[in-house]
Amino acid sequence: SCNVFMQLCPSSLSFRSHTCGELSLDHEGKTVTLCGWVQYLRQDLFVILRDFSGLAQVLIPQEESASHLKAALCDLTAESVVKVTGTVRRRPAGQENKGMPTGDIEILAEGVEVFNVCRKLPFEIKGFVKTSESLRMQYRYLDLRSSRMQKNLRLRSQLVMKMREYLCNVHGFVDVETPTLFKRTPGGAKEFVVPSREPGRFYSLPQSPQQFKQLLMVAGIDRYFQMARCYRDEGSKPDRQPEFTQVDIEMSFVDQAGIRSLVEGLLQYSWPAERGVLTAPFQTMTYEEAMRDYGVDKPDTRFSMKLIDLGQVFLSTEIEFLRSALSQPGGSVQAVCVPSGAKLFAGKDLEELKQTAQTQFGQRPLLGNLRLRCAALLESRGASVRDPSALHFLWVLDFPLFLPKEEDPEQLESAHHPFTAPLPEDTQLLHTDPQKVRGQHYDLVLNGCEIGGGSIRIHKASEQLHVLESVLKEDPSLLSHLLEALDSGAPPHGGILLFFLSF
Amino acid sequence: SCNVFMQLCPSSLSFRSHTCGELSLDHEGKTVTLCGWVQYLRQDLFVILRDFSGLAQVLIPQEESASHLKAALCDLTAESVVKVTGTVRRRPAGQENKGMPTGDIEILAEGVEVFNVCRKLPFEIKGFVKTSESLRMQYRYLDLRSSRMQKNLRLRSQLVMKMREYLCNVHGFVDVETPTLFKRTPGGAKEFVVPSREPGRFYSLPQSPQQFKQLLMVAGIDRYFQMARCYRDEGSKPDRQPEFTQVDIEMSFVDQAGIRSLVEGLLQYSWPAERGVLTAPFQTMTYEEAMRDYGVDKPDTRFSMKLIDLGQVFLSTEIEFLRSALSQPGGSVQAVCVPSGAKLFAGKDLEELKQTAQTQFGQRPLLGNLRLRCAALLESRGASVRDPSALHFLWVLDFPLFLPKEEDPEQLESAHHPFTAPLPEDTQLLHTDPQKVRGQHYDLVLNGCEIGGGSIRIHKASEQLHVLESVLKEDPSLLSHLLEALDSGAPPHGGILLFFLSF
Repeated sequence: SCNVFMQLCPSSLSFRSHTCGELSLDHEGKTVTLCGWVQYLRQDLFVILRDFSGLAQVLIPQEESASHLKAALCDLTAESVVKVTGTVRRRPAGQENKGMPTGDIEILAEGVEVFNVCRKLPFEIKGFVKTSESLRMQYRYLDLRSSRMQKNLRLRSQLVMKMREYLCNVHGFVDVETPTLFKRTPGGAKEFVVPSREPGRFYSLPQSPQQFKQLLMVAGIDRYFQMARCYRDEGSKPDRQPEFTQVDIEMSFVDQAGIRSLVEGLLQYSWPAERGVLTAPFQTMTYEEAMRDYGVDKPDTRFSMKLIDLGQVFLSTEIEFLRSALSQPGGSVQAVCVPSGAKLFAGKDLEELKQTAQTQFGQRPLLGNLRLRCAALLESRGASVRDPSALHFLWVLDFPLFLPKEEDPEQLESAHHPFTAPLPEDTQLLHTDPQKVRGQHYDLVLNGCEIGGGSIRIHKASEQLHVLESVLKEDPSLLSHLLEALDSGAPPHGGILLFFLSF
Repeated sequence: SCNVFMQLCPSSLSFRSHTCGELSLDHEGKTVTLCGWVQYLRQDLFVILRDFSGLAQVLIPQEESASHLKAALCDLTAESVVKVTGTVRRRPAGQENKGMPTGDIEILAEGVEVFNVCRKLPFEIKGFVKTSESLRMQYRYLDLRSSRMQKNLRLRSQLVMKMREYLCNVHGFVDVETPTLFKRTPGGAKEFVVPSREPGRFYSLPQSPQQFKQLLMVAGIDRYFQMARCYRDEGSKPDRQPEFTQVDIEMSFVDQAGIRSLVEGLLQYSWPAERGVLTAPFQTMTYEEAMRDYGVDKPDTRFSMKLIDLGQVFLSTEIEFLRSALSQPGGSVQAVCVPSGAKLFAGKDLEELKQTAQTQFGQRPLLGNLRLRCAALLESRGASVRDPSALHFLWVLDFPLFLPKEEDPEQLESAHHPFTAPLPEDTQLLHTDPQKVRGQHYDLVLNGCEIGGGSIRIHKASEQLHVLESVLKEDPSLLSHLLEALDSGAPPHGGILLFFLSF
């Protein structure tokens, strides 16, 4: 039976005997029962029936004795829901459809039950629904019938299942659900609030279970994960929804290399077989290298065109704007060498690049943006710069632990969050020159997109207190529960948040 | 390697080579590295080290040459976190501890690294923390270190994993995450609200994904499940929290028997092996039988003591209160036969039962409550009524579809929710005598607790409209999106919600 061998039985316990998409010449002569949606009728001869697995052709009997059945089938509107019983037969020679997975067979109908007749729909259901985004959202239950969306939802479900198997069954992680009705996080400006029954008191929907998972490590859970629903009140953006799901992982007695190996193994294990095999370990790069060579902390490493520092070249230049740039504190002159740029770029392209440079001047990833813009321009002119099927995973390491506050550059703020541990060799700098401290933070980047980030955390109360009080000048009493927990036998621990389930 | 064979490797990628609890004579002579918490020190000779897997005894070397190591180990406070490296050796004859899984061996320490020194804690960490509930909650990260809580969290994680395997890998269900920031459900009085950025507009945190899962069936997802976070704003009760998790299941092209088999298989598959094997199918009982024999719709069937109708016996009685009871519309005289009750019940017991009868008079499950109270009283007097290790699963079927409204008995309201389909043989009564219609609703009961409930849903827009408009006298425009979806090719479908993850 199915259960014993863990064989997938998508027709178990239902009215159907088979799914539409699984039928082939192996079933020739068998009586089958299918349930599904009418994709379309053809010449009053065929009903094309669809379920989640694919399409099958139902042959409408033409004999006088089957006139009732014929009438019932010919009356069907598109997207009506039926159960059809019939016999699988080989299609007559020459009528096979090589473009259809079940194109060798058809089902000669012997009975039909109409579950529901469908009204006229606002758009047609095809492999890919071609209508406005807003209409697709309004009739999401129709949009999801397209084979593309069916495949996407199933792929996500299977990916998540594989990740769970890897974490639970291979590495002994414990799936713990943490509360979402929580108290406000200090500094959590973008949190939704939920009024409680007590007037003037609110819950808060947290942006991540960061505090919970650190407390779970203090609790000796050893290895925690959660497909965590998170919330962010900043209005909808194209790539950010108010609620989203992150793969949240935390481990005790681990270092950066351990977390990196875990995540590499996780992606390898859960990667869909049809997308090829991922090779690990992934490339690593320090933050300093990323900024120097790519002008951004999440470089797209599918192509080179690295930044070139021309400071030495123009050291004694008399060109005024270059001299002025070089004389600024931290000022530099850098170039991107665009292969065939002279040939492929038009005057308006150069004008556009100049515009970008002017509007974004003084903002950090300007040079990185210009590099990406040049690549996109080259591609729009037909040059091949990036292989669209390539997957360049990259770890960016050794981020600065603190950055000057934008509104007051004399003050420091955490580059990520105040729980990140310093690099062991930089720990002493916490007391003497905190701005130079590098953190044990790591970002996972894929083709220039940040798809995850995490860190080894501070596990000593005294160090956490020093960071909060002396470096960040924050009120440590807001995090007294965490400080107390760290003083109660906290193991060394670290983790990561992976964002890609929300894309 | 671990990954290839899906063998569990709880020490992978970490500082330790083994977990404390896995060590045995098989490891004799091996050098191992353990990470964990100091359970206690014994006679300056032993450190008992704990991790999530159990305890191991570390022997403190006594030679002069190891004086630094000895000093470091003897200085440790309870619950400090350390890494110990040493050699596994057989305990000297007579010093084995048969009560300790690792009691045949000890680890002769050769090195120690102290990760964190623990301050004095508010309570001791033992197998079962004996302190007030409020202190356990305040220091939840300490409470969770107890072996009991460690076991509970791990059991839940494994149970959920097995359920996912059964649903995804055996029966082809798709794990779909539905939104929790939703619009208000008509009649959803107990929903939390979440203010949006638009003044005066709110999201609502739904009590269940009922509407989403029905729309997913209309979308052709075929089989959906979700470990769904649900919210209920009714203040905390001992067995109900404001947020909780339900196993939410919905299937297309299925009948009641199909859903019952699925859930029985789900529980059999995921049941922990050490708790024995569950036998299926589970017992079934109609609502009418449950009310007649047990006086409640979730009977505890571990014991008999069924209600006995004495209406016939007292038909011509002259006892005034019995006569009066029988003459009321729907009035009855019923008895519970309490075995050895005459011997075991004291006068105050009878007085208490009478009190209960008086205070709960006229409320529905009074007789059911009295039966349970009698059983509890018998047990408190030493009689054995219920086997505490027995598991009596029971399906209760054929609930009434509608009940008279408490505030206006002329009006009907849904016994569960307005989406439940009638029994096929009762469909005609929807138009003539709706109060007599039985619904395709099923409750799953375990030892007298409701642990799940669901139904086959209405899948025809016309029938759903009739129920909303003509029977329930509700404004159907509030559910116009659902009615429109049902008219767009909705398959027959049904599902269930299982509550037991929240207990």
